[in-house]
Amino acid sequence: MKLNRKKSDQNFFSELDPSPRLLMGPGPVDVYPRVLRAMSVPMLGQFDPEFTNYMNEVMELYRQVYRTRNHWTLLVNGTARAGIEACLGSLVAPGDSVLVPRFGRFGHLLTEISGRVGGEVSNIDTEWGGVFPVEQIADEVKRVRPKVLALVHGDTSTTMAQPLAGLAEACRETGTLIFVDATATLGGIPLNVDDWGLDAVASGLQKCMSGPPGSAPVTLSERAAEAISRRKHIEAGIRPEGYRGAEGPPVSSNYFDFGMLMDYWSPRRLNHHTESTSMLYAARECARVVLEEGLEAGFERHAQASRALRAGLTAMGLELFGDPENRIVSVTGVKIPNACGNGEKVRREMLQDFGIEIGTSFGHLAGKIWRIGTMGNVCRMPNILRCLASLEAVLRRNGYSVPPNSGVDAAYLAYAEAAG
Amino acid sequence: MKLNRKKSDQNFFSELDPSPRLLMGPGPVDVYPRVLRAMSVPMLGQFDPEFTNYMNEVMELYRQVYRTRNHWTLLVNGTARAGIEACLGSLVAPGDSVLVPRFGRFGHLLTEISGRVGGEVSNIDTEWGGVFPVEQIADEVKRVRPKVLALVHGDTSTTMAQPLAGLAEACRETGTLIFVDATATLGGIPLNVDDWGLDAVASGLQKCMSGPPGSAPVTLSERAAEAISRRKHIEAGIRPEGYRGAEGPPVSSNYFDFGMLMDYWSPRRLNHHTESTSMLYAARECARVVLEEGLEAGFERHAQASRALRAGLTAMGLELFGDPENRIVSVTGVKIPNACGNGEKVRREMLQDFGIEIGTSFGHLAGKIWRIGTMGNVCRMPNILRCLASLEAVLRRNGYSVPPNSGVDAAYLAYAEAAG
Repeated sequence: MKLNRKKSDQNFFSELDPSPRLLMGPGPVDVYPRVLRAMSVPMLGQFDPEFTNYMNEVMELYRQVYRTRNHWTLLVNGTARAGIEACLGSLVAPGDSVLVPRFGRFGHLLTEISGRVGGEVSNIDTEWGGVFPVEQIADEVKRVRPKVLALVHGDTSTTMAQPLAGLAEACRETGTLIFVDATATLGGIPLNVDDWGLDAVASGLQKCMSGPPGSAPVTLSERAAEAISRRKHIEAGIRPEGYRGAEGPPVSSNYFDFGMLMDYWSPRRLNHHTESTSMLYAARECARVVLEEGLEAGFERHAQASRALRAGLTAMGLELFGDPENRIVSVTGVKIPNACGNGEKVRREMLQDFGIEIGTSFGHLAGKIWRIGTMGNVCRMPNILRCLASLEAVLRRNGYSVPPNSGVDAAYLAYAEAAG
Repeated sequence: MKLNRKKSDQNFFSELDPSPRLLMGPGPVDVYPRVLRAMSVPMLGQFDPEFTNYMNEVMELYRQVYRTRNHWTLLVNGTARAGIEACLGSLVAPGDSVLVPRFGRFGHLLTEISGRVGGEVSNIDTEWGGVFPVEQIADEVKRVRPKVLALVHGDTSTTMAQPLAGLAEACRETGTLIFVDATATLGGIPLNVDDWGLDAVASGLQKCMSGPPGSAPVTLSERAAEAISRRKHIEAGIRPEGYRGAEGPPVSSNYFDFGMLMDYWSPRRLNHHTESTSMLYAARECARVVLEEGLEAGFERHAQASRALRAGLTAMGLELFGDPENRIVSVTGVKIPNACGNGEKVRREMLQDFGIEIGTSFGHLAGKIWRIGTMGNVCRMPNILRCLASLEAVLRRNGYSVPPNSGVDAAYLAYAEAAG
């Protein structure tokens, strides 16, 4: 590995000064200005009563966002997949059976995380672009009787959303805990944790919550918390004299051991990591913005934006990807026209010439579809119109002819219809 | 678990507005204003060339902070212990032998993390308040021949700093990799990664780097990177067709799998987590501030601040904790006078009445010593004088008599002597 230490490095690089962007990829997206501002607020000590009070407020705010009464609703200090790993790593002990229905890349991720911590994972699969009928999952739960059913709610890789209502009945029958990865959906579409009987749900801030990546709000049911407490082992160095851990096998991670995270977020405040102050400020402000708008109003804003975007794309002669019944509102898959090859030149021109980021995809969808996000603060008419007008211009320069103004006109119309 | 959802919660709590604090505990500490500002800068997409360029700049900046030419110098997205766990979890496979010399709480943490991922851990111990002679560790390495020697550089729980120069020779002989937890020392005292032959070093921002908690700069030697690549397994869902992982056992964590983190931080940019944008901005700005001052100048500022603080505390008749030869400059242990009981009332009055946070300690030192931090941006004469004057006032109100102005006068004198 060679190291090019040039003389100019002695300036330690220039001031942080990123170009303005409109982030319409699959996340991260533009952050609410109030959330950006919250991150520039000075520190408090981690055991300062003002700070622990903010921690408690965060718990209460995310209960509302998650529509739950779960006491254990807190932040994992890391990106969305840190929250996923903290849940699965704490729920799945070596040898435990886990069922993961896969309809996109992130089902593979849940499979992999569950397997790495020692779970015996089985899968059901469906083609990318579709989801599972709830009955199919319920039947498989009854057949396999897994300890944990791990599911993605919205998989951005395929732009699909898996219905979750109605799974709890089968899972209660078999004693199965339901884990849901709601990274792409929290704040964007209804996620009724209590009504749907979900036991552990993890998400991030950087999609429909319009915050920065790096903090993972998680909620745990009483059932999940009990399962976790059966394998709780307080860390050496801060254990009370004579302490012996619970009977269950310790979690293979210290950082992601929910038993200890719960002690840190309880009145006991037993030190674990040092809570990420600025990210907690951001998480708190994200929830306040989302709740002040109202969850239902926010869902409707997401739905309108994606309807308008899809109307525009379709009017431009582009073909949308995936089962129309189960498309997630927060990201739209568009088949890349033949004229545009693998689509990377179009993406580059959108970014460099128009300041708009749109995404590609993973696995066998890479170079086949673009993914255009309508998440959080981005879901506003000016952004949708700007994206469609820019895409029209770029597509035309790349040899794909578009009826002039067709996308913008169709989006205008969709918004007008929504306004009634 | 009862849920008190009061009517006032419908206001979603008040604006974020913490009281001004001077944070002189063991961290987090006051953040450089430039770093706070950096966190309020808008997002870039994770694969935006401007963002990946910032990632590369962060690598180069932390090479300078760590005094290393290690190519693999990057951020783990989590607090300091996330960096520790990523290093140990990726280096230590089940059955690997690990040697952890313990001289405080964080030696227990390294033991615990290494054990949880399946390492066979042995320890040597010394009383809290001291450190090990380098020869003793080297002899134990030769005897045990561990795969990994895991050491804390500065243990804030006991305020001690372990000398590290001279360990590499024994470790090269036995093929042992050296891991160092430099959370409390990076930016505060010399940490010469290459000169001392360290293989994996993890730290955080929230101490001598004067950043927020939540980002962990890590550096890995070629040797460490090779060991990690022997157990690399690219995640399901983004593997190339026909891919088979390396021979070694997969890391038990996906989030902390350094093989994948390295792919994400390489020109390949293989997606793993979504890099925590705002924390990367903060980490970049911390390094720029620290390097612009100059590492040596920063070390001297830390040393002066702790000398002045210690002179003041001693002049007030207080007794310092631990072996004077090996005290870390970034935190000072002070024995709590009998008049003050377990010291919590004094800490509370310092915080509530004077806006200054000082720390207690862990384990058998809890309630026995206060820990007063001199870290990063806090290391300025006005802060030291303010702390001593405030402490004098609070101690007197709590029945511990202090010669008037003795602490402040002694600190003035120490600063004057340093100025020559």
